[in-house]
Amino acid sequence: MNRTHNNGELRIENVGQQVELIGWVAKKRNLGALVFIDLRDRYGITQVIFDESFEERLKEVKNEYILSVQGTVIERASKNPKIPTGDIEIQASDFSIINTAKLTPMIIGDETDALEETRMQYRYLDLRRPVMQKNIMTRHQITRSIREYLDNLDFVDIETPYLNRSTPEGARDFLVPSRVHKGSFYALPQSPQLFKQLLMVAGFERYYQIARCFRDEDLRADRQIEFTQVDVEMSFMSTDQILEIGEGMIKKLMKDVKGIDIELPLRRFTWYEAMERYGIDKPDTRFGLELVNLNETVKDVDFAVFKNALEAGGHVKGINVVGEAANFSRKKIDQLTELAKTYKAKGLAWLKVNDEGVQGPIAKFFNEEQLEKLLTAMNAHAGDLLLFVGDAKYEVVCDSLAAIRNYLGKELKLYDPNTFDFLWVVDFPMFEYDDETQRYYAKHHPFTKPKDEDLDKLETDPEHCLADAYDIVLNGYELGGGSQRIYDQNVQERAFKALGFTQEQIDAQFGWFVEGLQYGTPPHGGFALGLDRIAMLLCGCDSLRDVIAFPKNTSATCPMSKAPTPVADAQLEELGIGVKEYESDKSE
Amino acid sequence: MNRTHNNGELRIENVGQQVELIGWVAKKRNLGALVFIDLRDRYGITQVIFDESFEERLKEVKNEYILSVQGTVIERASKNPKIPTGDIEIQASDFSIINTAKLTPMIIGDETDALEETRMQYRYLDLRRPVMQKNIMTRHQITRSIREYLDNLDFVDIETPYLNRSTPEGARDFLVPSRVHKGSFYALPQSPQLFKQLLMVAGFERYYQIARCFRDEDLRADRQIEFTQVDVEMSFMSTDQILEIGEGMIKKLMKDVKGIDIELPLRRFTWYEAMERYGIDKPDTRFGLELVNLNETVKDVDFAVFKNALEAGGHVKGINVVGEAANFSRKKIDQLTELAKTYKAKGLAWLKVNDEGVQGPIAKFFNEEQLEKLLTAMNAHAGDLLLFVGDAKYEVVCDSLAAIRNYLGKELKLYDPNTFDFLWVVDFPMFEYDDETQRYYAKHHPFTKPKDEDLDKLETDPEHCLADAYDIVLNGYELGGGSQRIYDQNVQERAFKALGFTQEQIDAQFGWFVEGLQYGTPPHGGFALGLDRIAMLLCGCDSLRDVIAFPKNTSATCPMSKAPTPVADAQLEELGIGVKEYESDKSE
Repeated sequence: MNRTHNNGELRIENVGQQVELIGWVAKKRNLGALVFIDLRDRYGITQVIFDESFEERLKEVKNEYILSVQGTVIERASKNPKIPTGDIEIQASDFSIINTAKLTPMIIGDETDALEETRMQYRYLDLRRPVMQKNIMTRHQITRSIREYLDNLDFVDIETPYLNRSTPEGARDFLVPSRVHKGSFYALPQSPQLFKQLLMVAGFERYYQIARCFRDEDLRADRQIEFTQVDVEMSFMSTDQILEIGEGMIKKLMKDVKGIDIELPLRRFTWYEAMERYGIDKPDTRFGLELVNLNETVKDVDFAVFKNALEAGGHVKGINVVGEAANFSRKKIDQLTELAKTYKAKGLAWLKVNDEGVQGPIAKFFNEEQLEKLLTAMNAHAGDLLLFVGDAKYEVVCDSLAAIRNYLGKELKLYDPNTFDFLWVVDFPMFEYDDETQRYYAKHHPFTKPKDEDLDKLETDPEHCLADAYDIVLNGYELGGGSQRIYDQNVQERAFKALGFTQEQIDAQFGWFVEGLQYGTPPHGGFALGLDRIAMLLCGCDSLRDVIAFPKNTSATCPMSKAPTPVADAQLEELGIGVKEYESDKSE
Repeated sequence: MNRTHNNGELRIENVGQQVELIGWVAKKRNLGALVFIDLRDRYGITQVIFDESFEERLKEVKNEYILSVQGTVIERASKNPKIPTGDIEIQASDFSIINTAKLTPMIIGDETDALEETRMQYRYLDLRRPVMQKNIMTRHQITRSIREYLDNLDFVDIETPYLNRSTPEGARDFLVPSRVHKGSFYALPQSPQLFKQLLMVAGFERYYQIARCFRDEDLRADRQIEFTQVDVEMSFMSTDQILEIGEGMIKKLMKDVKGIDIELPLRRFTWYEAMERYGIDKPDTRFGLELVNLNETVKDVDFAVFKNALEAGGHVKGINVVGEAANFSRKKIDQLTELAKTYKAKGLAWLKVNDEGVQGPIAKFFNEEQLEKLLTAMNAHAGDLLLFVGDAKYEVVCDSLAAIRNYLGKELKLYDPNTFDFLWVVDFPMFEYDDETQRYYAKHHPFTKPKDEDLDKLETDPEHCLADAYDIVLNGYELGGGSQRIYDQNVQERAFKALGFTQEQIDAQFGWFVEGLQYGTPPHGGFALGLDRIAMLLCGCDSLRDVIAFPKNTSATCPMSKAPTPVADAQLEELGIGVKEYESDKSE
């Protein structure tokens, strides 16, 4: 093999050159005694033309065979403007077969009708498809860009351990039985959180790592049990400075990978503003359809749903679907109502605005003055469709309208899918109250610093205690987030107590970490970004699985290797563990 | 905080500037009412001088407190040439305490008398020591240099999964119980070997990853259960081309990290030559003391040890310890003999050369002619000490003399510890025969390609079948190695069979992988380098633990977090596993 060029680089300027190419047979077709072969490698496709003298030898050559071809670059009679090498072809003078191939169970091309399970079983073939190669290479471009950025800013890439101590707080850990210490277990990290904070205690000042993380959570359609996180932490930096580092990374990334100039600083919404305007803390800001707070506007309207909601201390909000009244039949509005109900709304009220006033089941509850107030508040005009949710719970109103808003944004094509609209959401609440367990949970994690002015609310008013925490959001997806961390051991203990930990629990679970805070901990904070999700959005994919080389399927198995599998009894014996009497999963 | 400079950057040119520094109090001393504080951050140390007005406020400030200091850069009266900032100091105008610190359980300085267990328990303090910071930052420089090199050569960084299928071959796997598929287990990867080969099948052509690997092996003094590997694979490349890629990486690395120019190409030894000349496949070539093959030379000498060895088809080799006869007492030679015996040698024969001839217990077995032959073969002169081992087994001769050679090289200071002597060892045997289990094992792994000319020896003469495999060696350490891989499915099956696998075993264990080889596999090969070891050698450390931020100790526990630990019964219940009745390791 003495390859002179790859299959993506020959151009009209190369005509006349003697070349040797190597590649997979992507397509082979006969034209009389002539044979045309599209030769493919990771760089592209080049067409090779073989004259009749090769006819016999080429009979055995099939798709996905690997060939080495010698020949001359010639100008193509009928050019193919769709590929960069489309102006030329190779007139073959000789070739050899480097390896043969069995008939593949799927077509190797950008378009495939193969089931995803087949694609994952033959992942090495799925990854041969140019679109998948491009995704994986774009992912590399992304990590490369991020690394360059952080390297040049003096961040130190430090590896933290993957075999750690199990922590009951948070998601479920993957456990790894210890053979040396039988009955004991390591846990795979859900994130390097504690280690990166200890690296700040150690004085590294600026740390990053592109780290694998593991969560044994219940499976959803598009979640992976292992995922990759861009993990960043720094000392002696204000929140503004940290966000500046973060958005600088985004700017470079977008320039390097997409060639797009992002304007800085990114917009910032407080958590409350995001909830008020979009009903969600990861708003898709590529389109309007903003929520309107109607608590004041409808407070005198005699409609039971609004009345009851407001009397219970709740909320009424609406969306103006501008100009869409005529396009929404009763049936379509019923679909929206069903969507609202999946987010626990009791229903969806609506009005259509026309030249005479409004029409719809709740029109009768508004007197003229109330109606005018409403139309003004919602900036509504003839032809608009108005949607309303009222509920005693703020999150029900927000969740249901946010879902409807996102649905309509997509359905009505209110945005350009090639737009990338980044923003920060800041000033998150410290805690989330869980009705079921009747306790507060940390909205970020228990090491998040309250805003200085809210410190006392830890004890007096946890519900309204805000955190010095922030998320970065793109097109309705949370890309990641972070916070300033607590660096004062006393504050840390107060935060733990607000979360309902006893001193004993603190000592047992976090004692080893809290101990470290006592020896001169710098003020520090940082963030973590989900690399898989960034890659998915930048590649324009719908699934994380399209940007991970070897993903698991939705039941957390690998259709290619069949992992996980039963193991030999001797292996379990050595580990001192036994499998309980479940019907074991031998079918996998 | 409004830091203007770090603690490593102020110079005489900055005299007169107003600055603000932040750092940890590394040292505080009083001179009358004046107070001197050494302020430390990751960039260095700067001395601050406080006049008497601060005396009272400074009383509470102790070592490892974090201070923010404002002041003026002044020229130092007594300069300190040992540190880059030694020409200046800061005349403080104000300061504030950013955080306090408890008395640390160890001294934060390059020199420490803390036990390693203490250093690991308080790793965040150990890592504050400048020497440890430097190690971790050098490690980053290394990965950065390697990534740059590979990125620029079009290698694609691709992440492979950490939750995989268990493979019985090789070292012991760490297992991860699956909660979703109870009774089934994932395994943590011992290396990304199969995945990187499948990425070649997928057509990526050039892959790399700096990947964590896991081996649940029995513990030795300096081994970690998780370690990091620079993993590289490429397609359509000759062995020469692969080695060129590898040594180019080394050259750049040494230039970037150590400022040293390495000459290429690196020397290559065949495995056999390395064994003959150094007795070991990872020779330390910084010094001579080469082994001399004496099979021919002593074949007529009537010394039973030599005679028996040779008659059994064995070997006799010697080392000439030039000029050291006078320095080796009987007692010191006895020590060498003990060392030889730990490598299964039955003894160590020796001679001292003097002006009259030789002296020593075996002198009497040599006649004049035999002696002259010997002295010529060993290039021996008056004053030299000659050491010999004869044994029926080649490896006993080699192992014991290699151990003595390495011991003497260090003991006699035969090399400059700042020399970096890289080399390749190539043409390894495909197989190693294990007397105990009476079968052949793959010396690299079962996917290693035999040399083309040795293909038939797979069946006819496995012992002498050479592999297209290579190791890279530095100063007596194997940094890593690799091979061309088998890309022909038939050869792969023949290799499996030579290793004693039945078809059933192949199908069950490797079927999913071998299947992939059928669809157009390119010729491919690569290598893997041990990053921890490279970092250790480039940092001049003796222990891997000094270049890993959070290592495990020799009993595979983390003295800081105490991992592994027992876990809640509910966690095991969810996984469907139980711990057998061992005395569990609650003491940890």
